[in-house]
Amino acid sequence: MKAAIIMGSDSDWPILKPAVDILKSFGIEAEVVVASAHRTPGKVRDFVLAAPEKGISVFIVAAGAAAHLAGVVASYTTLPVIGVPINATALNGMDALLSTVQMPSGVPVATMAINGAKNAAIFAVQIFAVGNAELAGKRAAYREKMVEEVEKKAARVAAQL
Amino acid sequence: MKAAIIMGSDSDWPILKPAVDILKSFGIEAEVVVASAHRTPGKVRDFVLAAPEKGISVFIVAAGAAAHLAGVVASYTTLPVIGVPINATALNGMDALLSTVQMPSGVPVATMAINGAKNAAIFAVQIFAVGNAELAGKRAAYREKMVEEVEKKAARVAAQL
Amino acid sequence: MKAAIIMGSDSDWPILKPAVDILKSFGIEAEVVVASAHRTPGKVRDFVLAAPEKGISVFIVAAGAAAHLAGVVASYTTLPVIGVPINATALNGMDALLSTVQMPSGVPVATMAINGAKNAAIFAVQIFAVGNAELAGKRAAYREKMVEEVEKKAARVAAQL
Amino acid sequence: MKAAIIMGSDSDWPILKPAVDILKSFGIEAEVVVASAHRTPGKVRDFVLAAPEKGISVFIVAAGAAAHLAGVVASYTTLPVIGVPINATALNGMDALLSTVQMPSGVPVATMAINGAKNAAIFAVQIFAVGNAELAGKRAAYREKMVEEVEKKAARVAAQL
Amino acid sequence: MKAAIIMGSDSDWPILKPAVDILKSFGIEAEVVVASAHRTPGKVRDFVLAAPEKGISVFIVAAGAAAHLAGVVASYTTLPVIGVPINATALNGMDALLSTVQMPSGVPVATMAINGAKNAAIFAVQIFAVGNAELAGKRAAYREKMVEEVEKKAARVAAQL
Amino acid sequence: MKAAIIMGSDSDWPILKPAVDILKSFGIEAEVVVASAHRTPGKVRDFVLAAPEKGISVFIVAAGAAAHLAGVVASYTTLPVIGVPINATALNGMDALLSTVQMPSGVPVATMAINGAKNAAIFAVQIFAVGNAELAGKRAAYREKMVEEVEKKAARVAAQL
Amino acid sequence: MKAAIIMGSDSDWPILKPAVDILKSFGIEAEVVVASAHRTPGKVRDFVLAAPEKGISVFIVAAGAAAHLAGVVASYTTLPVIGVPINATALNGMDALLSTVQMPSGVPVATMAINGAKNAAIFAVQIFAVGNAELAGKRAAYREKMVEEVEKKAARVAAQL
Amino acid sequence: MKAAIIMGSDSDWPILKPAVDILKSFGIEAEVVVASAHRTPGKVRDFVLAAPEKGISVFIVAAGAAAHLAGVVASYTTLPVIGVPINATALNGMDALLSTVQMPSGVPVATMAINGAKNAAIFAVQIFAVGNAELAGKRAAYREKMVEEVEKKAARVAAQL
Repeated sequence: MKAAIIMGSDSDWPILKPAVDILKSFGIEAEVVVASAHRTPGKVRDFVLAAPEKGISVFIVAAGAAAHLAGVVASYTTLPVIGVPINATALNGMDALLSTVQMPSGVPVATMAINGAKNAAIFAVQIFAVGNAELAGKRAAYREKMVEEVEKKAARVAAQL
Repeated sequence: MKAAIIMGSDSDWPILKPAVDILKSFGIEAEVVVASAHRTPGKVRDFVLAAPEKGISVFIVAAGAAAHLAGVVASYTTLPVIGVPINATALNGMDALLSTVQMPSGVPVATMAINGAKNAAIFAVQIFAVGNAELAGKRAAYREKMVEEVEKKAARVAAQL
Repeated sequence: MKAAIIMGSDSDWPILKPAVDILKSFGIEAEVVVASAHRTPGKVRDFVLAAPEKGISVFIVAAGAAAHLAGVVASYTTLPVIGVPINATALNGMDALLSTVQMPSGVPVATMAINGAKNAAIFAVQIFAVGNAELAGKRAAYREKMVEEVEKKAARVAAQL
Repeated sequence: MKAAIIMGSDSDWPILKPAVDILKSFGIEAEVVVASAHRTPGKVRDFVLAAPEKGISVFIVAAGAAAHLAGVVASYTTLPVIGVPINATALNGMDALLSTVQMPSGVPVATMAINGAKNAAIFAVQIFAVGNAELAGKRAAYREKMVEEVEKKAARVAAQL
Repeated sequence: MKAAIIMGSDSDWPILKPAVDILKSFGIEAEVVVASAHRTPGKVRDFVLAAPEKGISVFIVAAGAAAHLAGVVASYTTLPVIGVPINATALNGMDALLSTVQMPSGVPVATMAINGAKNAAIFAVQIFAVGNAELAGKRAAYREKMVEEVEKKAARVAAQL
Repeated sequence: MKAAIIMGSDSDWPILKPAVDILKSFGIEAEVVVASAHRTPGKVRDFVLAAPEKGISVFIVAAGAAAHLAGVVASYTTLPVIGVPINATALNGMDALLSTVQMPSGVPVATMAINGAKNAAIFAVQIFAVGNAELAGKRAAYREKMVEEVEKKAARVAAQL
Repeated sequence: MKAAIIMGSDSDWPILKPAVDILKSFGIEAEVVVASAHRTPGKVRDFVLAAPEKGISVFIVAAGAAAHLAGVVASYTTLPVIGVPINATALNGMDALLSTVQMPSGVPVATMAINGAKNAAIFAVQIFAVGNAELAGKRAAYREKMVEEVEKKAARVAAQL
Repeated sequence: MKAAIIMGSDSDWPILKPAVDILKSFGIEAEVVVASAHRTPGKVRDFVLAAPEKGISVFIVAAGAAAHLAGVVASYTTLPVIGVPINATALNGMDALLSTVQMPSGVPVATMAINGAKNAAIFAVQIFAVGNAELAGKRAAYREKMVEEVEKKAARVAAQL
C-alpha cells in the first residue's frame, strides 16, 4: 500500500506532515513530493504517470490560491485523487476550496475541508481498507482511540463545572 | 462490489439516478435509499450499521440545505463516504457545500462539486478499482470514451468555423 | 427548569461558559456535555434520548466548521433546540452558521449569531418564562440591568466630549 | 396559547400562510399582522407592547432585504422572537439572514432558515409544549406523521429502481 | 447647522470620534449619543423624535453586527440618515453592510464604506453645503488640502525611487 | 432645486425612471444623462464640472458590474453623490454594491440598496428639504401616503384570514 | 498576428464566438480549439507547446466551474494568457473567477470579467497593438465607434424624457 | 520599452516595489506614480494622456477598496492596462477584486490575483516580449530560474523526510 502526497509549495509542508505521519502509522508507504501545477507542470505529469509503476494507488494533493493541482493530477490518472484546499491567500481558503471541489463531470477530486490534510490521510486509509479486513480493523481502532481522547477532553471540561 | 446511495430527499433522485446508472455500468451493485439525517435519523443509523453485512463498502450521500447527511453517515462508519452537496435552496448550494466539506479532523467526507453525483459514482468506481486491475481497466476505458465524446463535440464547434 | 448545553469540542467551552453562568443566575439548572456529532454520535443520541427523564426541556447546542451537532440533536427530540454557530475555521464561522440555520422543514434549530452563546442562554430563559410570571419578571429585570450598563458606558463616552 | 405572526410586507404572506396553518392545527391561536420596521414603526411598537395583554406569548417575525423587523420586535419585548429571513432581493436572502441572525448580546432572535416559515411555526409549538405534555405529545405525533410521509416518498423512489 | 451622531455601542467611539472632529472643523455642531436599536429602543426613538427641536437636521448612525440602528433611526424621521456599517463581528463587517444598505423602498439610508465614519461626516458637510456657498467653499478647500497631503505622500514614494 | 441622474448604460433606464418621477413629483428638476465611466469618461467629467452652472446640486448615479461611475462623479465634485448599484451581472449586484460603497476616505458616495433607485430620489429630496420647510412637509406627507398604502395592503392580507 | 482561443467545453462556444469575430475584424487570425484541462490534458499541452510554431503569440482561455484551463495553459508557455471565467455552475461564476484569477507568483493569467470574452479579444488586440501603430489606430477607432453607439443609445433614452 | 506603475495610495508601495524590480531586471523602464482615481482624478487623467509621448505602452495599476483606478486608467487609453486588486479593507480584497475585474464590454482590465503585483510585472514583460525574441528568451529563462528555486525548496522538504 502506497500513497503519494503532492503539495504545490514547500510552505504547505507543516500542514501536510501530520498526514504523512498518519499514513505511516497505518503501515502505508508515503511518497512526498513538492510539485506545482503552474511552475513545474512537467514534474507533476511525470510523477503522476510514473506513480503506478512505483505501486502508488492513491494521491493526496494539497494546494492554495487558484488550487489547480489536484485537478491537474486527476487529469493524468484514474486512481483516486484526494484534494486538500490550503488557506494561503487573503480569501481564507475559499479560492482554494472552490478551485479544488468544483470539478467537471468525469474527473472527480475527493475534496476535504480547508487545511484538512489529516482527513485526507484518513480517507486514503479508508480506501485501502476496502477489501482489507486488517487495515479496516486498524482504522476502526483508530476511531475508538480518537473517541477516547475526545472523552478525556470532555472530562476535563466536566471537571471544571 | 456494492455501494450505497443515500439521499436526504426524494427530490434529489433526478440528480442521483445517473450515479446509479454509472455504478451499474461498471458492474457495481447499488443499494439506493431515501433517508434524512433530520427526519429519519434512526433509519440512517440502522442502514449504515447494517451496510457491511450486506456487502456495502462505499457510501455516496447527497443532501441539500444544511447538508448534514454525509457527515452523519460518516459518524457511523469508517467505510469511505462520498458527499454530494445538492443545490436546493436560495443559497445556490453554498450552504450544502460548506455543510458537507468542512468536516472536523477524524471523520472525513470526500466531497464532490455541487450536484456532482456522477463524479461521486466515478470516484466510487475508482475506490473499488484500487487493487482490481480489471475494474481499473474499465475505468481507464471509460475515460477514453469520455475523451472521444469531448472530441466529437469539439469537432462540431470546429465545423462551425 | 433544566437545560442541556452540548458542545462539539472542549475548545468551545470558553464561549459556552458565560451561557451556563446566565442560566444559573436565572435559577435554571444546566447540564453541560461535550459530545461530537461526528466523533461520538452514540453519546449524542443517548444523551438526547435520556434528557427528558432528567428533566431537561431545552437544548443549547454549539459547534463549529460543518456544524451538524444542533441538527443532529434536533433529529432526536421535539424539545426546543437552540443552535450556536462557532467561529472555528478559516471561514469565519460562515460554514457553521449555514450548517446550523439552513435546516429542512420539520426539524427547526433556533439559530443565534456566530459565537452568540449568551443569547442562546437568554433565549432559553425566555422559553422557560412563557407561562412563568416570576421568571418573566426576572428576565425583564435582567434587560433593565443591561440597559443600565449600556447607559453607564454611554455616559463614559459622553464624558469624553 | 397564542402567537403573533408579523410580516414586513404583504408580499411575504404566501410564505407565512403555511405557518399559520400549522399553528392552528396544533390549537394555537395566531394573530397575523403586516407591519414594517421601517414604514410603520409605531404600529410595530404598539402591536408588540400590547401583545401580552392579548395573551400573545411568542412572536414569529418575517422580513426580507435589510430584515430589521425581528430585531425591532425583540427590542420591545422579552418574549421569545423567532425570525424568518425572507428571500426578497437580488442577494438570495443572505442580506435578510445576516440582518436577522447577527443580533447583539442581550437581545436574541431565534433565526430559522431562509424562507423557513414552517419551521418557525413548529418551533413556536415546541416552545408552548415545554411543560405542556398534551401539546408535546401532538408535536411528537406530528413528527411521526412527517416521517411517514417521507417514507412514502422514499418508497416511490424505491419503486422506480 | 447641527448633526447627530448615534452609535450603537460605546466600543464604536474610536471609529466615530474623527467624524465628530471633521464636523466641528466645518463649524457644524455635533450631538453625540450612544443608543442601541435593540437594547435602548426607546432612547433611540425619543432622541430622533426630539432632534428637530434641537436643530438637528442630519443623522450619522453607526452600528455593527445586525446593524439595524440606521434603519431604525430612518423609520422615525424624514431627515437624511447616513449609515456607517461597523466591522464588529467575525464576518468582517459584511453583516453590518448588508443590514445597513439593503433598505426597502421609501426609507433610504445613505450608506458609507465599512468603518467609513470620516466619509459620513464629510457627506453631512456636503448636505449642509447645498445652498450654503460659504460651507461649499470650505468643503472644496478641504478637498484641496487632502489632495496636497496625498501629493506629499506621493512625493515620499517618488523620493525612494 | 435640480438634481442630475447619471446612468452608466441605457439598459439601466427602466430602473431609474421611477426615480425621475419621484423627483418631479416633489417639484425637483431632473436632468437625465447616460454616460459611462469607462466608455465616455470625458462626457462624465464635462457633465459633472458643468453641473453647478446649471443649478444642479445633487447627483444620483447608477451603474452595474464594476460600478465606478458614482465614484468617478464624486472625484469631480464636492456636491452630494448618491450611488445606486445595479444588478447587471452574474454576481447579483454584489460587484456593483462593493464597487459603489467601499469608497476611500475623503470622497464619499451615499450608497443605496441594489437597484434602489427610488430611495436615491427620496434621499435627494431629503437633502433638498434640509432648511426647506415646505419640501420637508411634502416629504413627510409622502411618507404618510406610503404608510397608508402599506396599510391598505396589510388590510388585504387581514381580509384573507 | 495570431491568437489561440481555447475553451474548456463546446458549451462555451456561444460566449466565445463574438471574441473570434472581434479578432477577425482587427485582422488577427484566430485558431479555435475545444480542449479540457481535465478531460484532454494532453491535447491542451500539445496545442500550447505547438502554438509558437504556428505563429500564435497570445492565448484566450475560457472555462467554467473549477476553471483550471487558463492556469494550465499558462504553465506551458510564457506567452500572454488571457483568462475568461465562465458562469457555468450554481455558483454564478464565482468559482470560475477565483480559479482563474488567484494565480501564484510567476505564472500570471490576465483575467477578464465573468463571461467577458469580448474584452479578452479586445485585450489581445491591445497586446498586438503595442509597437504596431496601425493596429493601435484601429483599436482607437474601435473605441470611438463604441462611444458613438453608446451615444446613440443615450439619445434614445433622452428622447423618452 | 517602458511601463507605468500607478498606485492609488502610497501605502500600496511595499506591494508594488517588487514589480518595479522585476521590470527593471528585464530592462524595462518603469515610471512610478501615486495617483488616486478619487482624490486626484486630474492627475490620473493627465498622466495617462501624456503617457504615450513618454514612450509608455503598458500600465500596471494597483488599488484597494472600491478599486476604480485601473478602470479609470483604461477609460483614457487603449494601451493595455493590468489591474492589481489590493487587500486594504475588512473585506480581504474581495471588494478590490470585483471592482477591478468586472469591467464592462469594450474597456478591458487584465486583472491579477489580490496583491499580485509581481505577476503584473511579469505579464507586462510578456506583452513586451510578443514580437521581441530576445525579451521572450529572457522571460523563458526567468521561468527556468523560478523552477530551479522551487526545486531547491522541494529538496529541502525532501531532506526532512
